[in-house]
Parts: sequence; C-alpha cells; structure tokens
Amino acid sequence: MGKTKISSLGEFGLIEHLTKVFNTKDPSVVRAFGDDTAFVDFSKLSSSLKGGFLLFTVDTLVEGRHFLRWYPPASVGWKLVSVNVSDIAAKGGRPLFGMITLALPKYIELSYVEELYKGINQALDFYNFDLLGGNTTSSHLIMLDFPIVGHAKRLVFRDKPRVGDYIYVSPYLGDSLAGLELLLERKRDYKPYEKMLIEKHLRPTARLDLAPVVEKYATASMDISDGFISDLRKMLKNLSAEIFLEEIPLSEELKTYCLQRKKDPLYYALKGGEDYQLLITSKEDLTKFGLKKVGKITAPEGGKIIDARSGKVISIEGFDHLRV
Amino acid sequence: MGKTKISSLGEFGLIEHLTKVFNTKDPSVVRAFGDDTAFVDFSKLSSSLKGGFLLFTVDTLVEGRHFLRWYPPASVGWKLVSVNVSDIAAKGGRPLFGMITLALPKYIELSYVEELYKGINQALDFYNFDLLGGNTTSSHLIMLDFPIVGHAKRLVFRDKPRVGDYIYVSPYLGDSLAGLELLLERKRDYKPYEKMLIEKHLRPTARLDLAPVVEKYATASMDISDGFISDLRKMLKNLSAEIFLEEIPLSEELKTYCLQRKKDPLYYALKGGEDYQLLITSKEDLTKFGLKKVGKITAPEGGKIIDARSGKVISIEGFDHLRV
Repeated sequence: MGKTKISSLGEFGLIEHLTKVFNTKDPSVVRAFGDDTAFVDFSKLSSSLKGGFLLFTVDTLVEGRHFLRWYPPASVGWKLVSVNVSDIAAKGGRPLFGMITLALPKYIELSYVEELYKGINQALDFYNFDLLGGNTTSSHLIMLDFPIVGHAKRLVFRDKPRVGDYIYVSPYLGDSLAGLELLLERKRDYKPYEKMLIEKHLRPTARLDLAPVVEKYATASMDISDGFISDLRKMLKNLSAEIFLEEIPLSEELKTYCLQRKKDPLYYALKGGEDYQLLITSKEDLTKFGLKKVGKITAPEGGKIIDARSGKVISIEGFDHLRV
Repeated sequence: MGKTKISSLGEFGLIEHLTKVFNTKDPSVVRAFGDDTAFVDFSKLSSSLKGGFLLFTVDTLVEGRHFLRWYPPASVGWKLVSVNVSDIAAKGGRPLFGMITLALPKYIELSYVEELYKGINQALDFYNFDLLGGNTTSSHLIMLDFPIVGHAKRLVFRDKPRVGDYIYVSPYLGDSLAGLELLLERKRDYKPYEKMLIEKHLRPTARLDLAPVVEKYATASMDISDGFISDLRKMLKNLSAEIFLEEIPLSEELKTYCLQRKKDPLYYALKGGEDYQLLITSKEDLTKFGLKKVGKITAPEGGKIIDARSGKVISIEGFDHLRV
C-alpha cells in the first residue's frame, strides 16, 4: 500500500488490517484479537501442560534507545519477539502466548508497520507460538512491548548456582556489539563478515533450542542481554567464580573485525550486550550440547569474578539502561 | 528521596528500590521480580481456578497522548492499572496477574516514579491481584504498559448480542471528558463539582464490582473506553438498535458543568471516552444492579443506531486514537 499513512486507516482499521496475517495454532485459544481480552480455554490448556510452571515476562524496544527509525522494520519485529522468547528459553521453558503493544507516530507509513509485522510473524512461526492480541496507540516515537506467557516443567532460577558448578555459555559472545558499531557507520557496502555481525545485532536468535538442556541440567540459568560480566554478577550475587578467558566463545567474524580495527575481541565478548546467548551453571559436562565451559563457581562469598589464569579480578562494567 | 534522579540509581537499583513495596498475595506465585521471568505454580493455579477461561489483555498510557507530565503521578499509576482491569471486568472476570513496562526519561525525579508506583500499588490492593514483574528502560517520553492475565468462568464476547436484548450501561457517562477539559484549564481553584469531574478523568474506577452481573446475565459486554456510540457500534456490528436517550445516565456534576457552560451533557455522554463504564446486553432486567436500560437491539441488519423517540439516526463519532 506504498505511501499510505497509518492515520488514514485509523486505530481499528490498522488492527484489522494487520491481524489478518495471524492464525493461532494452540487449540486452547478460543478467541484472539477483536475483543476486550483474548480467551484461552483453561481446561484444555491444563490437560496439555500437565502441571509445571507458567512463566511471565515482558521486554520493550524503544526507538532511539534500542533501534533507530532507519533500521529494517522486519528486523525490529523479529528482535522484539526474540528478546522476550530469550527470557523463556533461559528458564528452560517454551513460549505459549504473546501480546503486543504498538505505539506509533501518526504519520508513519503503513508499509513500515506491515514490514514490522512481517518480522513478528516470522518469529512467531520460528518459535512456534501464538499472538493473542494487543493494542495500538499513537505516540511521538515508536515503542513496542511484547509480554509473553510461557511454560516450564521445573523451576530454574537465574541466581543461586552451587559452589563447584561449572559456568557455561552458548556461542558466540560479542558479535552484537560489533554489529551495532558497524551498523551505525552506515557504509554503502559491507564485507560478508561485517554483514554477518550486523545481522547478529539486528536479528538475534533466542536459544530456544537449548531450553531442554536448561530444563534437564541447569542449576541456574539466564540470558545474556546486558553483557557477560554484568549478567554473571547478577547470577553470582555474593558467590565468587573464576573465568577461563581463553574459553570465551569468539566468532571468526568478531576476530576478523577486531584484527582489522586493532581491538580486543574479549572486550566485546565480556562487555557487549544483546547477544541473547545463555549463561548456565551445572555440575554436569554440557560441552556436548555445544556449550562452552567458561568458568567455575569457587566460593560461597566474596562476590569476585577472577581471571583463572592471572588470578586478577575482572572488572569490565556491563551496560545499565538507566545510568547516564 | 526528594530531588534524586533515577539515573543515579541505575536500572537495577531502580527496580530493586521500587519492587520492595510489592508483596504477592496469590499462593500460586513462586517468584515475582528479580529473574528473567516470573514463576507461577500451574497445578496450584489449576486447582484454585477449576476450569473456565484465561483472559489476556494489555493497554498502554503514553505521555502526551493519555496524560501529561504535570498530572499527579499517583493518578497515572492508578489509571494504568484500572484501564486494564476494566477490560477484564467487561468479560465478567477477575484479574490474576499483572506485569509492567516502565519507559522513563533518564532525568526524571525518583519521587515521580515513587508516586507512580504508589498509585499502582493502591490499585493492586483495591482490585486485589498481584504484580509479577516487568522491565524498565530509558526513553524520551514516559510510556507505561500493563499486561494482565485474568480469569472468567464463562465466555462473554463483546459482540454478537441477540435481537430483543436490552442495552445497559453503568453510570455515569461523559464525566471523564468534562473532567479532562477542566483539568487542561489548569485553574488555581476548582469548585467541588469540578474537582469531582477531574477525579473521574484522572482516577477512573474499573467496574470490577459488576463482573458477577456480566458473568451471570450478559449476552455481550465491553467497557466504554472510546465513547458510548463508538463502542456500541463495535458491539453491534451489523445489528441495529434503538437508544432511549433520556435514560443515558448523567451525573449531577456533568449536568452542572454543562449548564454553566451552555453545553449539552448528552454530547459528553455519547461521545466522551475514558469513562470505563460497562456496556452490557441482556434479555433480563438488570436495573436492580444499578445499571441503566438505555436501549434495545431491534434488527439483525442495517447497523443503525436510532434515537427511539425521534426515529433519527444517532451519528456522533467516537474517538479513534490513530486518526488525525
């Protein structure tokens, strides 16, 4: 519909126009969209889930903060879903239902919103769950919210790993930050390895494939959204750990990027956020699942993260959304 | 903490600071806040709910659109919860769990956010349900999202009432729009009736008290957020109805306001949005529950809303968030 502005459709027209693309898969969904609330048949849901735990999460993408207007809208939609599924995956669960809040400037083009929804729809298909409804409103900037309800068979918290547990991460770390730097350069042409890194920033994949590993083996688990060291600190709280820096998983693309620019790939891997890889602790050997063994919980107190080789404290600060 | 800016606490400090005030009441909640997701024990929930339907809804308040920075923040927090509970009440249900997204400018004062949370907390106590978690992010303007999961014993849709059903509304309509006009005048002193109307706009109460009536008697039900005529059109779709205009519930405060300013209170009642009263259809007499019988579904087609006395079509347009 080319240069059509969303204001010409109005709120209700826009919702109707966009929700045509969604079909619910879960047989417990009685009605999604078009009512004050969505309806899910609780008895059907109960018999399909058989106990366990419901998981609730919500994460947001705000224009100017998490993305810019010129980013491909389909990638923004994909990422919106992925960052929320990532939280569910980190608990060893699977997503059941999502909802969406779409705050949009009145004069944005309909084609932008259609592309955005294309990305959301691709992600819903990929992660295999349903969008139940949502709301649209006008706003001076684009803001997207995507609450998810998921399900897990057992409780896996993000904190309280045990002393003696190994620390695992899924590969790779640091790609997203390098990709962001490249993206913001706005070059006309990118080399293949650069495109790859940019893609990691724009379209991260939630590690839902690892949810069964978390469910079976994790003593603690969380996703790495703010940076490895920053998130590890949240996991450890007062525990201490040593890190095997040489085991931190670095992609070939990140190594090439850092070589070209005389930068340290470890800096990206330890500090960079938004990789949406998983940080898992376990007594078991999880390397057979593609996870990298990057450290060990060493003491119940002290709250120190130490480089196992040098014995020095690792002090790179992570990313904190509200600090100036 | 007076003039403390939230940026001095950081995202994690802010969450920790604010979530101290919340205590969960529902025994099925295993963990709220402080993890990638919240956890609810599904077996406990199932045995307390015994079937029925889960309801999902999400509604948003955006600064500059739904409220202004100088509005009392506690009222913004109260309203955020109320507009979402209103959707649940309209389905004859009760809210179970809420989540919150809080997008805030970095330089906002901590006292603002504390007041906001005070209002949220008051509403959670009043409507008696739990906040499970949420996220904070920085943004150039304040944006608040509040997804709720609720529960209802049976399905009550917003559309498909039957021909012959009466149309009911809960009192009063139009107060919120009058209150908004008064609020925006920013007078130093307001008369008592003016204060009352302003309060109706700033702190609407979701009609959760009427949920049992909806559950028992409604053939269709929705909340009136965009205006009586506009919302009735959504309910009727292709059905036709006649309206008893003299039965539209008008508060004494609205009548006084309109008398003073030579305005028509019916205009406010039919067009004004954000009253969050309920619009219910039923064959039964529901006036004993305090509802006003304001019309009747007359024909299965035509899609016309007619003034029962004059026979003329009522054509006041409602409020549509994305139209220019």
